[in-house]
Amino acid sequence: MKYEIIIIGGGHAGIEASNFLIRKKVNFLLITENINNIGKMSCNPSIGGIGKSHIVKEIDSMGGVMGFYADVSGINFKNLNTSKGLAVQSTRIQTDKNVYSYFCKKLFIEKKINLLEAEVKNLIIKENKIKGIIIKGGKKIFCDIVILTTGTFMNSKIYRGEKYLNIDSEGNKSKFSISEQLKYYIKIKKFKTGTPPRLMKESIEYKKLKIQNSDFPIPFFSLRKEKKEYKKYYRKVFISKCFSTKTNFYTNNLVFKNIKKSSMYSGIIKSKGPRYCPSLEDKIYKFSSKLVNIFLERESLYTNYIYPTGLSNSFPKKIQKKIIRSIKGLENVKILNYGYAIEYDYLDPKYLKISLESKIIKDLFIAGQINGTTGYEEAAAQGLIAGINSYNKIMNLKPIILKKKSSYIGILLNDITSKKIIEPYRMFTSRSENRLYNREDNSIIRIYKYNINYYNNREIFKIKNFLKKIKKLIFFLKNKYLFFLKKREIYLSVRDKYIGYMFLKKIGIKVKYIKILLGKIIYKQYIKIEKNRNKKTKKIFKKRINISNINFYKIKSLSKEVIYNIKINKPKYIEDLRKITGINLYNIFEIVKFINENKSIK
Amino acid sequence: MKYEIIIIGGGHAGIEASNFLIRKKVNFLLITENINNIGKMSCNPSIGGIGKSHIVKEIDSMGGVMGFYADVSGINFKNLNTSKGLAVQSTRIQTDKNVYSYFCKKLFIEKKINLLEAEVKNLIIKENKIKGIIIKGGKKIFCDIVILTTGTFMNSKIYRGEKYLNIDSEGNKSKFSISEQLKYYIKIKKFKTGTPPRLMKESIEYKKLKIQNSDFPIPFFSLRKEKKEYKKYYRKVFISKCFSTKTNFYTNNLVFKNIKKSSMYSGIIKSKGPRYCPSLEDKIYKFSSKLVNIFLERESLYTNYIYPTGLSNSFPKKIQKKIIRSIKGLENVKILNYGYAIEYDYLDPKYLKISLESKIIKDLFIAGQINGTTGYEEAAAQGLIAGINSYNKIMNLKPIILKKKSSYIGILLNDITSKKIIEPYRMFTSRSENRLYNREDNSIIRIYKYNINYYNNREIFKIKNFLKKIKKLIFFLKNKYLFFLKKREIYLSVRDKYIGYMFLKKIGIKVKYIKILLGKIIYKQYIKIEKNRNKKTKKIFKKRINISNINFYKIKSLSKEVIYNIKINKPKYIEDLRKITGINLYNIFEIVKFINENKSIK
Repeated sequence: MKYEIIIIGGGHAGIEASNFLIRKKVNFLLITENINNIGKMSCNPSIGGIGKSHIVKEIDSMGGVMGFYADVSGINFKNLNTSKGLAVQSTRIQTDKNVYSYFCKKLFIEKKINLLEAEVKNLIIKENKIKGIIIKGGKKIFCDIVILTTGTFMNSKIYRGEKYLNIDSEGNKSKFSISEQLKYYIKIKKFKTGTPPRLMKESIEYKKLKIQNSDFPIPFFSLRKEKKEYKKYYRKVFISKCFSTKTNFYTNNLVFKNIKKSSMYSGIIKSKGPRYCPSLEDKIYKFSSKLVNIFLERESLYTNYIYPTGLSNSFPKKIQKKIIRSIKGLENVKILNYGYAIEYDYLDPKYLKISLESKIIKDLFIAGQINGTTGYEEAAAQGLIAGINSYNKIMNLKPIILKKKSSYIGILLNDITSKKIIEPYRMFTSRSENRLYNREDNSIIRIYKYNINYYNNREIFKIKNFLKKIKKLIFFLKNKYLFFLKKREIYLSVRDKYIGYMFLKKIGIKVKYIKILLGKIIYKQYIKIEKNRNKKTKKIFKKRINISNINFYKIKSLSKEVIYNIKINKPKYIEDLRKITGINLYNIFEIVKFINENKSIK
Repeated sequence: MKYEIIIIGGGHAGIEASNFLIRKKVNFLLITENINNIGKMSCNPSIGGIGKSHIVKEIDSMGGVMGFYADVSGINFKNLNTSKGLAVQSTRIQTDKNVYSYFCKKLFIEKKINLLEAEVKNLIIKENKIKGIIIKGGKKIFCDIVILTTGTFMNSKIYRGEKYLNIDSEGNKSKFSISEQLKYYIKIKKFKTGTPPRLMKESIEYKKLKIQNSDFPIPFFSLRKEKKEYKKYYRKVFISKCFSTKTNFYTNNLVFKNIKKSSMYSGIIKSKGPRYCPSLEDKIYKFSSKLVNIFLERESLYTNYIYPTGLSNSFPKKIQKKIIRSIKGLENVKILNYGYAIEYDYLDPKYLKISLESKIIKDLFIAGQINGTTGYEEAAAQGLIAGINSYNKIMNLKPIILKKKSSYIGILLNDITSKKIIEPYRMFTSRSENRLYNREDNSIIRIYKYNINYYNNREIFKIKNFLKKIKKLIFFLKNKYLFFLKKREIYLSVRDKYIGYMFLKKIGIKVKYIKILLGKIIYKQYIKIEKNRNKKTKKIFKKRINISNINFYKIKSLSKEVIYNIKINKPKYIEDLRKITGINLYNIFEIVKFINENKSIK
């Protein structure tokens, strides 16, 4: 038996890769250790969020499934940053994790895709080229290409307090053998992450909590939603309320007092965790937040599990209980699973080409959290790119390279393969140098430009039609709506937007087009300014400006994070800043401005 | 929160009940302990078989899902008893257990049915009437009716060798609380059953084995298959080969030698197991079969698990391995899970009305293996009946009572609620008194007669159309085909049948109608004879014939099983025989014949 491609892992990366290969009718095999875990949301039950929703929309614009599955399994829908500009506005959908994973299984089972429940023991590598895999029991399965998407399961260790647990709360064991083999080829490093405890729905006192409502009209991710078969689905959305609470000084004190009992602070875990999705310990002890916001979200309408965003920690059970029960509304809460920290092996992505093929082992593509990223969305994006590029390789086509100036996926790929990653990598709008252009609303326009041999004729027709409509609307708006707006001012207040919406709705234009339009028109001039600034900044790199003596704390526009990143990377010249994660052209522009100003003062 | 009906348990009984309530748009809730286990085939990966396929077709004729799901998940399709008469011909579909269970989940998730993953701690019973349930954590959920379908999970204990295991091979724990509560109302008894070890596909030497091919044309169960959305499914059936082997004298010797080490023979399990699906120990030691046939079937195309029918046993691991590896083709086999015996509580079904409502607790319906039956099919049938009758109760309609003279489901319900059950009850064609009429092929005709308020208008139209076609065909056949056959003889050889098939196919009649027709025409006269015999036998019951002194071994037409059943029940008069399971009118007729013959000799 020989397959063209074998995908190892049925998580979010594996699913996007599979979906692409299904559409291209490639003879591939997906191997998963547990069919029930296909498309499982192993941590938070939501898709999207700031920066991440941009990725989801880009995946969707390339025909991926993440946005669509989130739409059909959504139980709470949020527009984030609505008070800010369109560039940083994001969508976040809280999903029913059972429904999400059901749709992922549907993809395989109803299309009768080759799927195998087995544990992969080893890759077959000959002369630094992939030849196949060996599964538990010794059977060899041959293939041309392997896509490795094993997430955080490689050599993972789970910690709670001083204890090391052999399996996670749902009985999944870690796997050693692939990382044992790959360490001879690729540098393997360790990261840590964590998961909060899960609470019993009935034991929470909701009267003490704040309600977080779902937004209306419902913000969906996918443009594929016109698909007939799911129309009934969209019509019958169940909305689940989300609740919020906060830690208090007593809670924070408990964390301080017991800090040495946490796995992360007792010294047994040394690797780095995601700073942007920190544990309760980090938030309170390291970043000394005063009070921590906690959001209580249902994992599924079918279970009574509540996911408390913000409570990720690795204290021993007794202390976890004490800490949690000190929080308003959770005084009598029952804990179904306790939180824990997980330390896992990742493969340093600097050994990857930007196509996600390994530089060391030919025909091995690596995607997802195994590359040191964090988040379902980042994993899915990599899976999709690995799927496309493995297909292109089989077909003797060039790999697609998404540019960082016009897509968040491009930024992601550029950053992980060229910058030094010192903590689990997650996406932010601040990582983009063209934030005003790389918006959520125009993803279809940005991605379509790549013309990546991905769409079929029917889809191309649809997209062209879509773009045509937008052009028409722009023309219309320039002449009528903008005229009306100009009288007031170019900046759109919420009320203005509402008037605009209503106006367009009246003349029969669908809401989904409007956001794209508003972005395109309103931001046009700013995008120009942004582009010019970036051009100028790039010229600066040609000069070798020494920055080793600069006191960055004096530059007010730089965030603590940026300064932290500069400090530990110790850049000598201005061009070294480009290789540091979390620092964008705007930051560099500000630094140069500061240097110039100080020069003139001298 | 109040529901009209709560179904406890997402197995085969719970699914049929749910499907009925979904169609009737009842506000019900299904509670399962694990969503992943909905529709799980926990033992053999097949649906149907002799006697059982009749039930599946009857379920299908009532709009149930079992036959349809088996069709779409089938990987090996068999016509059984094809060399015998139509009355005992049966269909057996080996299914992909992952696909089967996927379709069961689809029923709930895509229709957004109320589903809750929770453990039920207690029923709320007030003045012997159901009021609701209490789930783990203490939450009460109220309802009018409860349908209890917890299968073999009530107070179950798992044994292997002398060891008692707390959980089964897939991590499921037994539940005590409901049976602890119900024992104050209903007599609780114990049965045992078992499961074979599971073997690793790659470690079997197939060259030494016999191949069991799938039949063609594919025998499907369901008449619903015209459903558009699954057309593509039927067109693309993957056939998996099934293999067979046998024990040998060395194997049998190992069983004999180690018999005291088996849980079932060491004395720790005292309850009765299903005699018709016996363990390896029973087959070799108790029923002294010479060599036992073993069939090796894949559980799923997605896994490498092989289910070896015939190898169910409860020996310690070491001995199991020795026994299994002594069998031809399995010399080097790897064992993925070892076999075990399971002892569980069942509720004596004599406390049930024939509608499956409890006689003791009002508004409690009980269905499935919890009633002391065995088999997915028997469970599904009860689930469907409990679903229909709970709905009828809500609607103030009379319960439907399927008659035993015209349906196997009727036989099942009659037997379990009126006869004494001494071992797990399974269906056989021999349990039917009207075998020649109660055929697999005419189930739609038999069931439609009940007109059970189950079909919607579209379905009734379909069925009427179907019956009309059959009438037309009968007319046609009487005049043409039968004329042709009469010249030869009324008995149809395989060759004759083939000619008939071809003949009808030529004139454009679908194969699915043909079987029904053949049965209807060919068996007409025999059915009359059968009816007359049954009438005569029933007259006998009016006379009080004492049978306590008869030596039943002298009656050659009685099987060992029948004699065994008579022996342990010690009937005094001929009418007492009717209450014994496994004894049908034909047996009684033979006994009376024997008595009369011996009289005349005297």
